[in-house]
Amino acid sequence: MKILKINEEISIKRSVDNGTEEQRVVVKSIIERVRQDGDEALKAFTEKFDGISLVNIAVTEEEKREAYKEIDDDLLAIIQEAASNIRSFHEKQLHPSWMTTDENGTILGQKVTPLDSVGLYVPGGTAAYPSSVLMNVLPAKVAGVERIVITSPPDKKTGKLPAAVLVAAQEAGAEEIYKVGGAQAIAALAYGTETIAPVDKITGPGNIFVALAKREVFGDVDIDMIAGPSEIAVLADDTARPDEVAADLLSQAEHDIFACSVLVTPSEALAKAVAAEVEKQLLTLPRQNIASQSIENFGAIYVTDTMEEAIDTINRLAPEHLEIVTDNPMELLGKIRHAGAIFIGRNSPEPVGDYFAGPNHVLPTNGTARFSSPLNVEDFQKKSSIVFYSEKALKENGEKIAAFARLEGLEAHARAIEIRLRK
Amino acid sequence: MKILKINEEISIKRSVDNGTEEQRVVVKSIIERVRQDGDEALKAFTEKFDGISLVNIAVTEEEKREAYKEIDDDLLAIIQEAASNIRSFHEKQLHPSWMTTDENGTILGQKVTPLDSVGLYVPGGTAAYPSSVLMNVLPAKVAGVERIVITSPPDKKTGKLPAAVLVAAQEAGAEEIYKVGGAQAIAALAYGTETIAPVDKITGPGNIFVALAKREVFGDVDIDMIAGPSEIAVLADDTARPDEVAADLLSQAEHDIFACSVLVTPSEALAKAVAAEVEKQLLTLPRQNIASQSIENFGAIYVTDTMEEAIDTINRLAPEHLEIVTDNPMELLGKIRHAGAIFIGRNSPEPVGDYFAGPNHVLPTNGTARFSSPLNVEDFQKKSSIVFYSEKALKENGEKIAAFARLEGLEAHARAIEIRLRK
Repeated sequence: MKILKINEEISIKRSVDNGTEEQRVVVKSIIERVRQDGDEALKAFTEKFDGISLVNIAVTEEEKREAYKEIDDDLLAIIQEAASNIRSFHEKQLHPSWMTTDENGTILGQKVTPLDSVGLYVPGGTAAYPSSVLMNVLPAKVAGVERIVITSPPDKKTGKLPAAVLVAAQEAGAEEIYKVGGAQAIAALAYGTETIAPVDKITGPGNIFVALAKREVFGDVDIDMIAGPSEIAVLADDTARPDEVAADLLSQAEHDIFACSVLVTPSEALAKAVAAEVEKQLLTLPRQNIASQSIENFGAIYVTDTMEEAIDTINRLAPEHLEIVTDNPMELLGKIRHAGAIFIGRNSPEPVGDYFAGPNHVLPTNGTARFSSPLNVEDFQKKSSIVFYSEKALKENGEKIAAFARLEGLEAHARAIEIRLRK
Repeated sequence: MKILKINEEISIKRSVDNGTEEQRVVVKSIIERVRQDGDEALKAFTEKFDGISLVNIAVTEEEKREAYKEIDDDLLAIIQEAASNIRSFHEKQLHPSWMTTDENGTILGQKVTPLDSVGLYVPGGTAAYPSSVLMNVLPAKVAGVERIVITSPPDKKTGKLPAAVLVAAQEAGAEEIYKVGGAQAIAALAYGTETIAPVDKITGPGNIFVALAKREVFGDVDIDMIAGPSEIAVLADDTARPDEVAADLLSQAEHDIFACSVLVTPSEALAKAVAAEVEKQLLTLPRQNIASQSIENFGAIYVTDTMEEAIDTINRLAPEHLEIVTDNPMELLGKIRHAGAIFIGRNSPEPVGDYFAGPNHVLPTNGTARFSSPLNVEDFQKKSSIVFYSEKALKENGEKIAAFARLEGLEAHARAIEIRLRK
């Protein structure tokens, strides 16, 4: 793992895939076809891309029950405990509607309403991601969303969805599940088909076709962020243990050859020891091939002159995940301005947050922590402003409002006030 | 104004301008040029589009002082009172950082941090919009944003910004103001020039070139929504006064020939009376030409069989502005699921909220109230999740977390936990 000296012009190398023009054209044509032909298009694309001839687009009650039989009891208990932790954390994000009252009769306020319906995309591929299901469905559930839809491509051999995904969905409270993947699934969620009613917002990760389709339908429905490859930055001093820091860097690196793992430290000794540990631990990793490419291309250890400079580097990176592994990690928290999730101290390795602790694992990547937040309950609610003026309030303020309207050249605005004042 | 019977298939006609391919190419080339040539490009484009040869890109201290001399004292007092109302409403939107603690030593939480910097675009043209300045700057200020930048095209004759805009900016607390408009201003805010340092988020309305430029830079910086033409829906029964309802519909219609003004009512008598009043009031409006085109093309009165059906229509419309002018307006509030701002009762005409009452006038248009909120303090803050596990907490939960990681095929995640458990 390369060790670099930090300098003014540093910019961390990250990978962002915005897709090719060709991919964009394919995605547009898939969406168009689904809008025209509905279910029939979904079945045709599933046959073409997943090699599965769907009988039912929806997962059946029997398939849902079967999933529970396939899953190990201990794993079920872990999924249930994780769901409980995640639910409990997100319940703390709830804010009520509120109002203010004034003696003159004015009431102002903010009404909080859950979205009517949301759709969660769950990627297919080699592994099942029940944690994704929990992290997307539970905030929507806590927010009060009535209709939560899940869609995911069927397994190319069995034609089914993974048992762990079906179990996590049911534990989280999502019962409407479809066996459709890719851009065609996003089109169905946005515009509806005979079987799948449209939703108001689409969340969840996916491959480049899914990402492009989400961009395409954005505006007609809402979407969550378009997630880039995963990132971790570890901020550490010489009290950190090199083997633990190395293990944490590799836990990101194994996700994806484009994942970005970075250590920032004022300790040259730690830098060298971590670099050596990374090489050593890589040797025995099952996903060694992925992790080593990620470390080679997007990994780096930055050595700074001071801890202040290291913190400044972290704020410029605005990493998705930040670990603070220093002598006094809590003291540094107030200096961190930009990070999606902050893991504090040596007993809080990042995987604690991926599955179990409670905070969401859907986090802003690629420096967008400068202006974006982890997925949360408010992403599944919206607000309406409330304005109630009494006759007295309008009399007191009407002429001022009319004058402001005329300052902006809007006479009809002024008259809408004055027609009432004159009575 | 046309009177229509509501039916199953109704969809309100709205205008959305996504720009042409040609406009997109122009905008891309302007952005590219600003990224390359910085201030020089800004000056060249300002000369070309605004006919002004800029000496200073920034508004000078003298220009700021001059603005106060140009503005009427009464208007200044009204702007100050409006600013105070808006500030006070948005302060109620503030939520603190929070944490939870557990006996086993776990701390989980959510840290709230303001954005470092935001840029507000203020459109130029025939009228000045000080209310836009207040509505965009004050939430950012209340959120705690340290650097707030305003940019607006110089007047084609004087080369200056309108006095009312400069005064509103200073009253709201924004001192960094530039005389640049169009796509070039958005490029400068996103990527920076010698004079204008880049910001993290860009808000504010603008013409199609500004909107396309915001779409283009989105991702590198955050943007607010892309606003469509203004809309009002009035939900009324036969207790509403036709002249007042007509005046309110016209106050939207005068904004823009694409503005959308709709009355939904179960009362055929009201429908007819309002239609007649609209024609009558139109005759004396200074912006009659704009308002009549808007009413002709995008205005409608829908008559329903029942009040329930009228409410259902409103929820399907998800209007930007909703007025409820019925015998019992407060009783209907709980049934309204989708609206940007809700004005209750006959003494709360929509212009009350445009300038003065306190809630934001930047609202979701074109049906996006289904999933979007008024501009608010949280648009200028972001959250970071906090995870602190104690040694005890990691011991209690570590094996469960490792098992979940292995269920997803992520061995390095499991090892990052276990390397700590083994010690």
